[in-house]
Amino acid sequence: MLSISQYREAITNYLSEKVVVKKPENLYEPMVYILKQGGKRLRPVLVLMATEIFDGDHRKALDAALAIEIFHNFSLVHDDIMDDAPLRRGMKTVHEKWDLNTGILSGDAMLINAYQLFENYEGDIFKQLAKLFTKTAIEVCEGQQYDIDFETRDYVSIEDYLLMIEYKTAVLVGASLQMGAIIAETSEDCKNAIYQYGRLLGIAFQLQDDYLDAFGDPKTFGKQSGGDIIENKKTFLYLKTLEAANDSEAQQLQHLYSISPGDNSAKIEAVKSLFESSGAAEMTRNEIKKYTEKAFSVLEKINIPAEKKEPLNKFGMMLMEREV
Amino acid sequence: MLSISQYREAITNYLSEKVVVKKPENLYEPMVYILKQGGKRLRPVLVLMATEIFDGDHRKALDAALAIEIFHNFSLVHDDIMDDAPLRRGMKTVHEKWDLNTGILSGDAMLINAYQLFENYEGDIFKQLAKLFTKTAIEVCEGQQYDIDFETRDYVSIEDYLLMIEYKTAVLVGASLQMGAIIAETSEDCKNAIYQYGRLLGIAFQLQDDYLDAFGDPKTFGKQSGGDIIENKKTFLYLKTLEAANDSEAQQLQHLYSISPGDNSAKIEAVKSLFESSGAAEMTRNEIKKYTEKAFSVLEKINIPAEKKEPLNKFGMMLMEREV
Repeated sequence: MLSISQYREAITNYLSEKVVVKKPENLYEPMVYILKQGGKRLRPVLVLMATEIFDGDHRKALDAALAIEIFHNFSLVHDDIMDDAPLRRGMKTVHEKWDLNTGILSGDAMLINAYQLFENYEGDIFKQLAKLFTKTAIEVCEGQQYDIDFETRDYVSIEDYLLMIEYKTAVLVGASLQMGAIIAETSEDCKNAIYQYGRLLGIAFQLQDDYLDAFGDPKTFGKQSGGDIIENKKTFLYLKTLEAANDSEAQQLQHLYSISPGDNSAKIEAVKSLFESSGAAEMTRNEIKKYTEKAFSVLEKINIPAEKKEPLNKFGMMLMEREV
Repeated sequence: MLSISQYREAITNYLSEKVVVKKPENLYEPMVYILKQGGKRLRPVLVLMATEIFDGDHRKALDAALAIEIFHNFSLVHDDIMDDAPLRRGMKTVHEKWDLNTGILSGDAMLINAYQLFENYEGDIFKQLAKLFTKTAIEVCEGQQYDIDFETRDYVSIEDYLLMIEYKTAVLVGASLQMGAIIAETSEDCKNAIYQYGRLLGIAFQLQDDYLDAFGDPKTFGKQSGGDIIENKKTFLYLKTLEAANDSEAQQLQHLYSISPGDNSAKIEAVKSLFESSGAAEMTRNEIKKYTEKAFSVLEKINIPAEKKEPLNKFGMMLMEREV
């Protein structure tokens, strides 16, 4: 098996070869622009890795890996329009560099293009990949819709929130891994287990992302600290605090989430202190641990030699060991 | 075989049963809204009709027909955003009734939903349908991009224009018919011929649409007369006039296409008179005739009993006999 960076290189090379500007240029240039920006390529790496874990050849998985990466970038292009985001990976977003119409239409073409890549697989594998892809893509849209809905909804339950991050983020991680299992033609049990591993790890990852947004060290986490608090985002930490806090603390939090001061530092500190005092911060840490452990225990039970699981263990650790 | 109105009824019933509001409602309500507005259902009727022409059962084709109708409506939702259109079929467009984000996201979900409907077909039929659908969907996006590009491009050739309307409109007509042929499991020759019939008829139809926009009787054509002229749209008539006219006429036309008077009636009359005097109007009528005849001659050669072809003959006649 190759290392993560070797898989990443294999994808980057394949992408350079396959993703090129065709006519009409205004449709394909934005696609090449966003796909060649880089990014971590986590999802396509997982497709290749899972293929080899189940004794397939990663080269056979390059088309599916590229499809996943193109789909992920399609969702970024359309989400950036919806969020009115000017920048992505430090560069102008597609609708900013071109315009709204280009963002919509080149995004559409990317989604269709992802489907086209599955055509390189034979009958039954093609159908399995296309079905999994469609199911996942619909869930990602539903997750995005829930995320939008929650912004204006008064009450969001913990259960609602977990479903939202599962759909918006985690199912694509599960699907990436399951695609590798499908291409390697392993057993149904293995296909299901590897999906669950990815899904659970994806939820843990997203919860950790929420947590680090408040409590992470901006130097190592790489994002502005407290961004979610500034935007009054109903994260797991926020919802858990409302649930766990007494009435006075809950009212304080709701008040803080209704104001938008010029200087946010006092607001951020006050909210973080409520996250801690209510016990929600600790509960969130426990929840992250719970999902991570569940993920690893599913991996543990997969009936393949231990050394085959090593790369996934490593990958999971790498993902979850980001600095607080 | 059933009549066109019976096929239409079969689709409307199937659509009512299958297209329902699920959670999250904000994603699915716009989908139900636009799909239940009606419209002529021409494309899904063609799927059912082609299935029975090649001795298949139209009920087996309902999923593919619905997929085509959902795809068509997906393209309307996203195109209406791009064109900033407030109304469609006399009702508010999705992005007007809801908002931009809803238009983008529910459109995306519709595109994915169309793919999902093909899953109801077995292995090889599934793959053939999905491949044809993907190829067609990409061409529709490319056609839309060319259409956008032409607005700001100085020179558009007749060849460019024909490719644009082929991709934007005609290939989906061809694909609708070919889907029926695939479901009926007819020969490759028949599959190709029926596609060509649809493609050629689709081009003829779009050229006629351009022609009627200028010369049609608003009472029977159902659209405002001269709409394309008001919008300075580079239609076949316009491009053909530039090609056929002498220098002075061409300059006149370009001047007329650079102004936006408060009252457009004089402009419309002047442009129409140039369309006629240059000979372009007649050439356009000949071009429509040429494509229609080509379509019928392809149909003629398909190796099935004459009575099987009758519904398609009728359909083509009905389409092309709109009042001038």
